[in-house]
Amino acid sequence: MAKIAVLGYGTVGSGVVEVLATNSESITKRAGDVVEVKSVLDLRDFPGDPIQDKIVHDIDVIINDPEIDVVVEVMGGVEPAFTFVKKALEAGKSVCTSNKALVAAHGSELLAMAKERKLNFMFEASVGGGIPIIRPLNQSLTADEITQITGILNGTTNYILTKMSREGSSYEEVLKEAQALGYAERNPEADVEGFDACRKIAILTSLAFGSTVKFEEITTEGITKISTEDFAYAEQLGCVVKLLATSKKVDNKVYAITAPFMIDNTHPLYNVNDVLNGIYINGNVIGDVMFFGAGAGKLPTASAVVADVVDCVKHKGKNVMTIWSSEKLELGNTDDMKRDFFVRVKGNDTSAVKAAFGNVATITIPGVEDEFGFVTGMLTEKEFNEKAEDLEVINRIRRDHTKL
Amino acid sequence: MAKIAVLGYGTVGSGVVEVLATNSESITKRAGDVVEVKSVLDLRDFPGDPIQDKIVHDIDVIINDPEIDVVVEVMGGVEPAFTFVKKALEAGKSVCTSNKALVAAHGSELLAMAKERKLNFMFEASVGGGIPIIRPLNQSLTADEITQITGILNGTTNYILTKMSREGSSYEEVLKEAQALGYAERNPEADVEGFDACRKIAILTSLAFGSTVKFEEITTEGITKISTEDFAYAEQLGCVVKLLATSKKVDNKVYAITAPFMIDNTHPLYNVNDVLNGIYINGNVIGDVMFFGAGAGKLPTASAVVADVVDCVKHKGKNVMTIWSSEKLELGNTDDMKRDFFVRVKGNDTSAVKAAFGNVATITIPGVEDEFGFVTGMLTEKEFNEKAEDLEVINRIRRDHTKL
Repeated sequence: MAKIAVLGYGTVGSGVVEVLATNSESITKRAGDVVEVKSVLDLRDFPGDPIQDKIVHDIDVIINDPEIDVVVEVMGGVEPAFTFVKKALEAGKSVCTSNKALVAAHGSELLAMAKERKLNFMFEASVGGGIPIIRPLNQSLTADEITQITGILNGTTNYILTKMSREGSSYEEVLKEAQALGYAERNPEADVEGFDACRKIAILTSLAFGSTVKFEEITTEGITKISTEDFAYAEQLGCVVKLLATSKKVDNKVYAITAPFMIDNTHPLYNVNDVLNGIYINGNVIGDVMFFGAGAGKLPTASAVVADVVDCVKHKGKNVMTIWSSEKLELGNTDDMKRDFFVRVKGNDTSAVKAAFGNVATITIPGVEDEFGFVTGMLTEKEFNEKAEDLEVINRIRRDHTKL
Repeated sequence: MAKIAVLGYGTVGSGVVEVLATNSESITKRAGDVVEVKSVLDLRDFPGDPIQDKIVHDIDVIINDPEIDVVVEVMGGVEPAFTFVKKALEAGKSVCTSNKALVAAHGSELLAMAKERKLNFMFEASVGGGIPIIRPLNQSLTADEITQITGILNGTTNYILTKMSREGSSYEEVLKEAQALGYAERNPEADVEGFDACRKIAILTSLAFGSTVKFEEITTEGITKISTEDFAYAEQLGCVVKLLATSKKVDNKVYAITAPFMIDNTHPLYNVNDVLNGIYINGNVIGDVMFFGAGAGKLPTASAVVADVVDCVKHKGKNVMTIWSSEKLELGNTDDMKRDFFVRVKGNDTSAVKAAFGNVATITIPGVEDEFGFVTGMLTEKEFNEKAEDLEVINRIRRDHTKL
């Protein structure tokens, strides 16, 4: 019998308990042992809930329980999760978490702590919800040098952008709708400003390149400035706007960015809609590979957490995760990245644009007065900013041309 | 230093040697040890090739070499691969293979032999080339009861069908072209008759459900009867024709089939074109998840083999694969599967069709004389066959309505 504790009985925590109960037979077979939830840490009581007798309010009850082999941390946020996870590892318990904030901030340290103690620190659910992505990066793509990771890693913003694209509704309208449906939080900042996707690409990039990416150093732009008009221009260009989180290795330097991008229908992520997540990876020998699925949600996320629990139980006494070193990965400067841009400029006089960017084709949208759009040639962000300095830019959206 | 032997210096074997050389630094880091090819078994010599001094012609030189920890079997075919792999496991060596014929025929036995001896028998490259699918099924989807696996698992037939769909060319023309390009073999039977895809779905189904599927028992139809006219009808229906290999659990019974299916643009595999492979999986908690990538090719396949080698080196002395039992999985009878069918009937008289299948809409294609098409309602294969018995059926193609 393998006994586990769950820290946090919220959406994911209750999902973990539910999945273990629903699929107990097949999970036992795969883990090689019965997996039982012994304790659930939460500030609240849950009278009437099947786990009411397992609720504890004090983390030390769990830490000091020698029967508990694996701790599932699904509270979210850096503290007190970080303190609790360290205590669990110090007490000889493996840890599985869905907490991207914790992993992005302290992943390398917790991986090293686990390895030293022949334990495991696993976090499949921290990126892409149920989509297997951490384990494939950790164990399947080991023959490759990764050259690019590009993902739609946040379901909330993808839902909003999909709705805006399909229905021509405004950002504010769709956000309200998403909040009403529970797809967006009341304070949606972490999602709509790109912070969530930024932490996820930091985790994937750290794993892929083997050293620590500071998520604070990743250029991050949210979707709050994307408007109905932007989508009208995008449509004329045969494109959609997606929040991409991406890292690329160019000339031995890794460049990472989280921002809205215009992509056309040849892009591998063009059809990743609604709350789905999609992740494109290129390796120098495997070529292109892609993963799609539900990026969030109670049961898909719990499925990934429980798969980690199964791995911990199966590999008791043996560390199986590739660690990434605590050494900092010095990211390249976003200013040096070459790409093309879609730009909207105020007024009707195209002469300043043509003087700065050459003889570009201009685009106008019926009903959208006193402005026009155009697409630049390939240039660095720095060059773009210099050339655009004297223009009255309404918005500019980067373009991405990844192809399968 | 971990020393390995490669059995077979063909396309995949030379790819394995190349990948180990190209990415030796990162592979060493991930394996925790330098991986060196000590011997290569082949009937031929390779004068001038970097591995010329490593060539051996006698398997026993490798079997009796105590320095060799891992054997890579990339010869293909059941024999002598099976004999060699058994010898290697008996001698205490882990085995990695890309050989779907071997795995489909003897997977459970070889997995059990490896487990008994605390070795590993790995076969990531046997399905989907470079796409990580065996390891995700084995280690990531462990919290789920799998309810469906549907894949485009053969690149050759997908290339042919894609070309036929896009260019309106005949099967025979495109096959010739594919053979000239090296995408199809001179004797294309294993691909075009669906035998290759059938073995691959047998492997995935065995892994997902934990007992052995006899590939010989999977209903298998190839693409040789698919014509230009079928694609013309498909286009009118907003569909394409794809060779799907699929297994589904319905009422606790698993049904498997490999056959051409008509699918529309809401199907998750609709956009998997050319030599790409795609695999859709549904689990009872994770929901939908999908994997795409190069399903074949020297380097993608070698990437998967080398990832297995890394895993074997990392987990020396510890079995990490879920075994599937040698117990036979009794497949449900294809005759009982409910679906709808696209049917082409000779002549212009629709009365017999309407008498048998109800008031179905008929379709005609300009320039295609003396026949018409229609789509049936949902019915079992048995019911379909009974109703169609007295019609002059030119072709019938099953339809699949999997949605994300």
